[in-house]
Amino acid sequence: MSSTQVPKPKIVITSGEPAGIGPDIIAQIDPSAFNARLVVIGDRNLLQSRAQTIGVTPNFVGYDDAIDTAAALQVIDIPLAHPCQAGQLDPNNASYVLTLLDQACQGCLDGRFEAMVTAPVNKGIINQASIEFSGHTEYLAELCQVPQPVMLLHADQLRVALVTTHLPLRQVADAITADRIKQVTTILARGLQTRFGIKNAHIKVCGLNPHAGENGVLGREEIDVIQPAIESLQQQGLNLSGPYPADTLFTPAGLEDADAILAMFHDQGLPVLKHAGFHHAVNSTLGLPIVRTSVDHGTALNLAGSGQARAESLRAAIDAAISQSIHASAA
Amino acid sequence: MSSTQVPKPKIVITSGEPAGIGPDIIAQIDPSAFNARLVVIGDRNLLQSRAQTIGVTPNFVGYDDAIDTAAALQVIDIPLAHPCQAGQLDPNNASYVLTLLDQACQGCLDGRFEAMVTAPVNKGIINQASIEFSGHTEYLAELCQVPQPVMLLHADQLRVALVTTHLPLRQVADAITADRIKQVTTILARGLQTRFGIKNAHIKVCGLNPHAGENGVLGREEIDVIQPAIESLQQQGLNLSGPYPADTLFTPAGLEDADAILAMFHDQGLPVLKHAGFHHAVNSTLGLPIVRTSVDHGTALNLAGSGQARAESLRAAIDAAISQSIHASAA
Repeated sequence: MSSTQVPKPKIVITSGEPAGIGPDIIAQIDPSAFNARLVVIGDRNLLQSRAQTIGVTPNFVGYDDAIDTAAALQVIDIPLAHPCQAGQLDPNNASYVLTLLDQACQGCLDGRFEAMVTAPVNKGIINQASIEFSGHTEYLAELCQVPQPVMLLHADQLRVALVTTHLPLRQVADAITADRIKQVTTILARGLQTRFGIKNAHIKVCGLNPHAGENGVLGREEIDVIQPAIESLQQQGLNLSGPYPADTLFTPAGLEDADAILAMFHDQGLPVLKHAGFHHAVNSTLGLPIVRTSVDHGTALNLAGSGQARAESLRAAIDAAISQSIHASAA
Repeated sequence: MSSTQVPKPKIVITSGEPAGIGPDIIAQIDPSAFNARLVVIGDRNLLQSRAQTIGVTPNFVGYDDAIDTAAALQVIDIPLAHPCQAGQLDPNNASYVLTLLDQACQGCLDGRFEAMVTAPVNKGIINQASIEFSGHTEYLAELCQVPQPVMLLHADQLRVALVTTHLPLRQVADAITADRIKQVTTILARGLQTRFGIKNAHIKVCGLNPHAGENGVLGREEIDVIQPAIESLQQQGLNLSGPYPADTLFTPAGLEDADAILAMFHDQGLPVLKHAGFHHAVNSTLGLPIVRTSVDHGTALNLAGSGQARAESLRAAIDAAISQSIHASAA
């Protein structure tokens, strides 16, 4: 009913590990293809020289909040700590990588940006720099002082959320508690509504064990933990069902009536998602006060500077950030 | 060069859990569609009456080894222990289900059959009958006195083998030993050659932890166990590589140059396989002295007697049994 033009959302993109393909894929982004203002955060010289290496000519300009430079990528210039060579990780740049996240996240919390999109980082090299870091999802949750973030990967209509994320496999079973399942599911249901516009989403829940424990024969967590958590959530009015054997649930028939799948751990849920949606899958963090999306791939060090890195997942992550920020502002 | 006609392989099919869809899908098999002699093992009255219920008219005849009844399904009649109602599990029939497996397996070991194909069983109800049973794969290995069977699921060119199979998730990490990986990989490589005709198969190995442990940050099993096992196998001349993050390995690019994927556990490998290949995926057991294939689905109790059960996976399992028995006899 209003004739006021909705202002374009401002999306900040962190360029991630400088030795990886983050700078390569950002250089391939045409900002005029998005109904948003795109701002990149990273070392401007690095971004420029990597673009040159791979033979693309993006129009990088300095960041100016007051101006919408439609066809240019505005850059918040954060200098590298050490010179960077494509493909060569350097622990001296770990703090640089985290500074990009800190500033982008703070900008979203302050309302200067409607969403942040992250290019990949390398967990190993950050930890080598004696900084504990288990993943973007966990790091941003800490910055936002949120105890329980939820990692949601999505491609087309397939959406997979995880109860546990970057946890060694031997720690997974103990981490699956009724409380955690309830928290994650509640955040997931709310996120599907406020970020995707799906009301009363049907969430289908995986078991933890093979064949969802097959009535306790292959593990009791389904009976002792997951089933009671599901019943408690159903009583609160959530639309969920399970626990289902993961290998049955991910068949086309199992997915048909699901708005989202809740997997118990990383490698139960993500191989299918990436198999089905590679190059256009997006990783979104739910449960944060900010909108955050990410590419679905790693740093691909061997491709950095080669011109072979593909930017489809970044484009999909930007599209998702725009869509989610619009849903978020309406929610 | 020889003009001798190769005799058609004889394939024995176990009809599995009587309350499940095994009898339904067997009734839909047209033996004249296969270049093999098909023999079914199960309660003939049950098979006949279930066929009637779902409105198909298979030509069941008694088993006679001397006669090739091309258009008829020969039945080795093993009577049920208790009357069976479609969809209703009964622990009293657990011993019946196992007798089918015992006789089919013995027939293969004796050389009366070239391969066995199994319809699904229900692990829970067998265990309720106080018989320890964790799966066909493990049960047949025990009958064949093989300490380490290998479960291989395959659909088209995608082949996924498992280091651990029907094990509660919390027991998986401790079960991943270098010895086990070496045994399984050796059996897998030999099986790909002797059952599939793939020489020097390229096997790509998953890590155990998310992102294959990301250089030890998310678990050390890749560094301490999997990588040394891979190196030792490579020194023996096996063509394998890894460990790779599962969610990267199962992308189209990761699968491209793989003859088989070795997953560390059930729900790491099978959701993708069943997502990509449902209704025509086959489960083959490698490492046995016999050829055994299976459907890729469960008993689907709710579909038994409904006429809705689909026989594609059984047909694919029969085709695979025929093909593997021909490779096995040539090997």
